[in-house]
Amino acid sequence: MGQIYEALKHAIREKDAVALITEVQGPNPGAKVLASDEQVVGSLGDSNLDRVATAKALDMLQHGAISTVHYGPRGEEEGTEVELFIQSFAPPPLMYVFGAVNLASAVVRIGKFLGYRVTVCDARKVFATKERFPEADEIVVQWPNEFLETAKVDRRTAICILTHDPKFDIPLLQVALKTKAGYIGAMGSRRTHQKRVDNLVEAGVSDEELDRIMAPLGLDIGASQPEEVAVAVAAQIIANRNGRPGGSLKHSDGRIHAKPEPEKVPG
Amino acid sequence: MGQIYEALKHAIREKDAVALITEVQGPNPGAKVLASDEQVVGSLGDSNLDRVATAKALDMLQHGAISTVHYGPRGEEEGTEVELFIQSFAPPPLMYVFGAVNLASAVVRIGKFLGYRVTVCDARKVFATKERFPEADEIVVQWPNEFLETAKVDRRTAICILTHDPKFDIPLLQVALKTKAGYIGAMGSRRTHQKRVDNLVEAGVSDEELDRIMAPLGLDIGASQPEEVAVAVAAQIIANRNGRPGGSLKHSDGRIHAKPEPEKVPG
Repeated sequence: MGQIYEALKHAIREKDAVALITEVQGPNPGAKVLASDEQVVGSLGDSNLDRVATAKALDMLQHGAISTVHYGPRGEEEGTEVELFIQSFAPPPLMYVFGAVNLASAVVRIGKFLGYRVTVCDARKVFATKERFPEADEIVVQWPNEFLETAKVDRRTAICILTHDPKFDIPLLQVALKTKAGYIGAMGSRRTHQKRVDNLVEAGVSDEELDRIMAPLGLDIGASQPEEVAVAVAAQIIANRNGRPGGSLKHSDGRIHAKPEPEKVPG
Repeated sequence: MGQIYEALKHAIREKDAVALITEVQGPNPGAKVLASDEQVVGSLGDSNLDRVATAKALDMLQHGAISTVHYGPRGEEEGTEVELFIQSFAPPPLMYVFGAVNLASAVVRIGKFLGYRVTVCDARKVFATKERFPEADEIVVQWPNEFLETAKVDRRTAICILTHDPKFDIPLLQVALKTKAGYIGAMGSRRTHQKRVDNLVEAGVSDEELDRIMAPLGLDIGASQPEEVAVAVAAQIIANRNGRPGGSLKHSDGRIHAKPEPEKVPG
């Protein structure tokens, strides 16, 4: 138990996103699991229950949710014998905006609207200024790839590459693709992106990795003004996180809201 | 000519969106056309050129654009003999948010982000307050359908119905469907909306009219938090305006940005 609280304190200090699962009712009341993308500490006394509860908690962590859930003693979804209290300790998710271009201001503002901690990074110090991006939480004058090498990135992180210049884009994308970032979007026409892809393939990047890059950037809504492009990007970030296609709900027939479901376990 | 300036002054006073087309080079230098959704005043001396230039100007008006364009003397797209200067006189587009619910605050904020003049309307005065919606330009305590009966609505107007109560929704939708509003979105599950549709059909609303209602509201991005739903709505408003499907640009192959094209005219 001490180990769990040590790990929790460490996570909070390091601003890591973690979920704490506590068994409220069931065979092991008080049992705890601390789960993050990196590690799982502790056990509820059954490996299947641990697995199901951890998957649920990590999904809830994406939304910073707190809730009580019920399972069977071995994690059966239809069971009710075990009551778990799941708490998310989730600092604001991180958004990195590379390229202090005009569009970046709108992307920063919509990032703040969605609750991100937003960093703008550009190697050119005349552009990367607090005056141009008053809403940004942090402004970094550094080569984008060098900055991202050491920056904190987790599954909730959104990386928006607006640099639009192969000199910055190619090394930056190579670093970005090594991270767990939930969203990697890169500005540019289809032709620009095709050239980027050719360069990245030459540099040894795999098709699977390339497929993570959202380019052209954003949903297909005909955005032209900076604020419209920012909305197209924000909508794509949310859609990606939830595995949704992004067309009109009017013309689809699935669930309206994202509801993370634990994996089904044979009873 | 005097007639055009009278009409322009009137439009600006009434906050109507109008475009002024001036022939800079061509057979009739100085000739002018004033175009709005309601009327076209003046002529460039050729009915085809008038038609093409007016269509172009009305599309530009959607984005408040100002630009120089070239056509042939009869509006031929590939022609260059006629140079037209097109100016938009477009006040901020209007967004009406009906239902002073919690979600409304996020919709108001994204409406402001996109440059709308935003009005919140609700019959319940305890909810429709400046304290709850500090960013709104106007707060109206009135029955939604009665308010919309006399409110200004044009093609650029977005109507967001978040009331979620048939008592308000049904009469409000009946009024909304009689307007030219470019976007009519209504909150609610598929079942709620099916009931609404049944009620509206009973009230004599046609299938074509019903098809204008965006419900469930927003693009299919799995939005759950209010800010996420607001992004889904904003993205749908932009997509609707540009006749785009939503979906990721990554998986489509058309134009990235909306570029209103004048109708093709036989040369």
